[in-house]
Amino acid sequence: MSLIVQKFGGTSVGDIPRIEAVADKVARFRAEGHDVVVVVSAMSGETNRLIELANQVQERPLPREMDVLVSTGEQVTTALLSMALDKRGVKAKSYNGSQVRILTDDAHTKARIREIDDERLRRELADGYVVVVAGFQGVDDGGNITTLGRGGSDTTAVALAAALKADECQIYTDVDGVYTTDPRVVDGARRLEKITFEEMLEMASMGSKVLQIRAVEFAGKYNVPLRVLHSFQEGPGTLITMEEQEMETPTIAGIAFNRDEAKLTIEGVPDTPGVAFAILGPIGAANIEVDVIVQNVSHDDKANFTFTVGRSDLPRAEEILRQVAQELGAREVSSDHKIAKVSVVGVGMRSHAGVASQMFEALAQVGINILMITTSEIKISVIIEEKYLELAVRALHSSFGLDEETLEEGTA
Amino acid sequence: MSLIVQKFGGTSVGDIPRIEAVADKVARFRAEGHDVVVVVSAMSGETNRLIELANQVQERPLPREMDVLVSTGEQVTTALLSMALDKRGVKAKSYNGSQVRILTDDAHTKARIREIDDERLRRELADGYVVVVAGFQGVDDGGNITTLGRGGSDTTAVALAAALKADECQIYTDVDGVYTTDPRVVDGARRLEKITFEEMLEMASMGSKVLQIRAVEFAGKYNVPLRVLHSFQEGPGTLITMEEQEMETPTIAGIAFNRDEAKLTIEGVPDTPGVAFAILGPIGAANIEVDVIVQNVSHDDKANFTFTVGRSDLPRAEEILRQVAQELGAREVSSDHKIAKVSVVGVGMRSHAGVASQMFEALAQVGINILMITTSEIKISVIIEEKYLELAVRALHSSFGLDEETLEEGTA
Repeated sequence: MSLIVQKFGGTSVGDIPRIEAVADKVARFRAEGHDVVVVVSAMSGETNRLIELANQVQERPLPREMDVLVSTGEQVTTALLSMALDKRGVKAKSYNGSQVRILTDDAHTKARIREIDDERLRRELADGYVVVVAGFQGVDDGGNITTLGRGGSDTTAVALAAALKADECQIYTDVDGVYTTDPRVVDGARRLEKITFEEMLEMASMGSKVLQIRAVEFAGKYNVPLRVLHSFQEGPGTLITMEEQEMETPTIAGIAFNRDEAKLTIEGVPDTPGVAFAILGPIGAANIEVDVIVQNVSHDDKANFTFTVGRSDLPRAEEILRQVAQELGAREVSSDHKIAKVSVVGVGMRSHAGVASQMFEALAQVGINILMITTSEIKISVIIEEKYLELAVRALHSSFGLDEETLEEGTA
Repeated sequence: MSLIVQKFGGTSVGDIPRIEAVADKVARFRAEGHDVVVVVSAMSGETNRLIELANQVQERPLPREMDVLVSTGEQVTTALLSMALDKRGVKAKSYNGSQVRILTDDAHTKARIREIDDERLRRELADGYVVVVAGFQGVDDGGNITTLGRGGSDTTAVALAAALKADECQIYTDVDGVYTTDPRVVDGARRLEKITFEEMLEMASMGSKVLQIRAVEFAGKYNVPLRVLHSFQEGPGTLITMEEQEMETPTIAGIAFNRDEAKLTIEGVPDTPGVAFAILGPIGAANIEVDVIVQNVSHDDKANFTFTVGRSDLPRAEEILRQVAQELGAREVSSDHKIAKVSVVGVGMRSHAGVASQMFEALAQVGINILMITTSEIKISVIIEEKYLELAVRALHSSFGLDEETLEEGTA
């Protein structure tokens, strides 16, 4: 008998038949003798309905009241799922964030969890109840309702698993695990049995949107074994754990990619200290996130500076950059939104030389020009023209031996 | 400057434009310098939508979870109204029942308020906030969410007004006050400027469904001045207060009536002690409310026993009564659902003799036969055939001088 925290997202509890299916699943785990805490999101569409109501009232709704409003969505699901469990003869009780109590800071709409009081939950578990907790929400010191921001239910689940020292935190999704790359791009993409927290972080931040990044960070920090599974299909999913020496790690875990980037270049800026800050300071001040940054010296002792931002931020970033260019006396500002980022990710990279050269060779063999390169300890990313994205992903997937064996494809 | 508690029901906050209109009204009171606490219901239709979801899951939903579910409805309204006030430059904060804290017993779906902690509310008011409180809900000793049952928002408003010693508790509705009788039945029905708690109780229980009975009882007990007003029309409404000696009370405040009754008679039961209990005990045990009860002796030293119940309870009550009749060896059981109750209500009745005879005379003059009679200190009720209801109400309204003076109608 073990203690399991299970999280079901908005699609998994999107209507009553799905809530019933989730209740069946939870009841099975309970019947096997496990203690179960279930974390649920709002029924799909409900959060948007509530936000729409708020937007009808106020262009920029009061953050405190926004949290009061949207937190009702998860509360509704907890009640309905508890009823569905009760109908199956499974004792169940709902808890909202304030009742648990999940103490957060007071940053409404994007609060962070500070502390979880697990006493009431432990008592309910000891009394034989399945506890159904509203994800995504908490309460601050002053008793005000807070929310963790979109997708925060994953974080709630991991934080509860950490506080309760659960044996496993299961995140139920609409995919049956984490793949070596997007199966829609590469036919031979394989489900991974295991992946490390670090690899998962690099995959997640690159657009493999299976899990919320904060949840993975949290799980890594508190070493909570995390498993990604499909809500309505059977299967072992993918286990996300600490790196183990004895784990037979292939060099590369997967190929991640992201189309949602745009590239900005400012040419002919003075090659002096403080220039990078002069350029990126105003961008950061405008709350625009910058991803890849590359700087190199041009022929006339001036520097060229290139960085990428989310595609929707491009117009605003470009406007800011043109002002900066005037102030710095730069030669030119240019932008390109038809780019994509492709990354090779794997903890094995640390101990294996030659991953970078193998990557560049594979891309060269299919005639793809690399526009930018960045590297981290377990990841190498390149920016290429968007039109080559699928070709690049397939070439790399094959080159690093990730294709499903049964397919026996050669290297492209 | 005074402290006012204002309550707006589901129809008054039924959509965003109406919530905006309520915000306008609250803002005007605030601008006049009053401290304002607003109690709101769920947007009309929302509570039914949530109950419908629960019924899809469970035939008899878990009461604890039912409360968790439906309490979200009011919470949504508090957030939206707070936003609407903020948009108007009025500082506002929402509070749910648990945050206030409105402590109740643990009788889920029909909890009773035990105690209100008004400290946080007083602090918010002192800080210049309008406090928007979710009606209809509270929290029990164990921190579980409870609800007061349908219409409980009125009770919340009165209880808050009592705790805060508010100068007035204003209940906004879809009528502009309490009338001498139903204006749909009598053209000359007049809005009352004032009415006593006791009169209001007798009127409310008779189907003038302006206010929840519990709320009026509560207001009377704690002497909270209660005012019934129209949500979207200007006007003084009707003030419900303690009986004052100097208040120029007409003998009769109004004519109440109720069509929703049915009559049951059991004939020929033994005229011995304990018979009334033998008959009504099983009816009460089945949670059927009994209204008028009349017993008298028949010619053969047996008693005849007649009582009325809500019309929808008639089939069940009759079934029970037939069993009782067998056990008691009664002669016959009969029922009639085509009856109605008409009542004359007024505290002035206490000091004025002759109200009963005036009532019976007025009915006799228009040829209406009285089936049953019951009296209380400030009310006389008769049961008549339903088809005579309108005729009876008009005759009594006119006989007791309640018709609008401008109409100058003669007595029927």
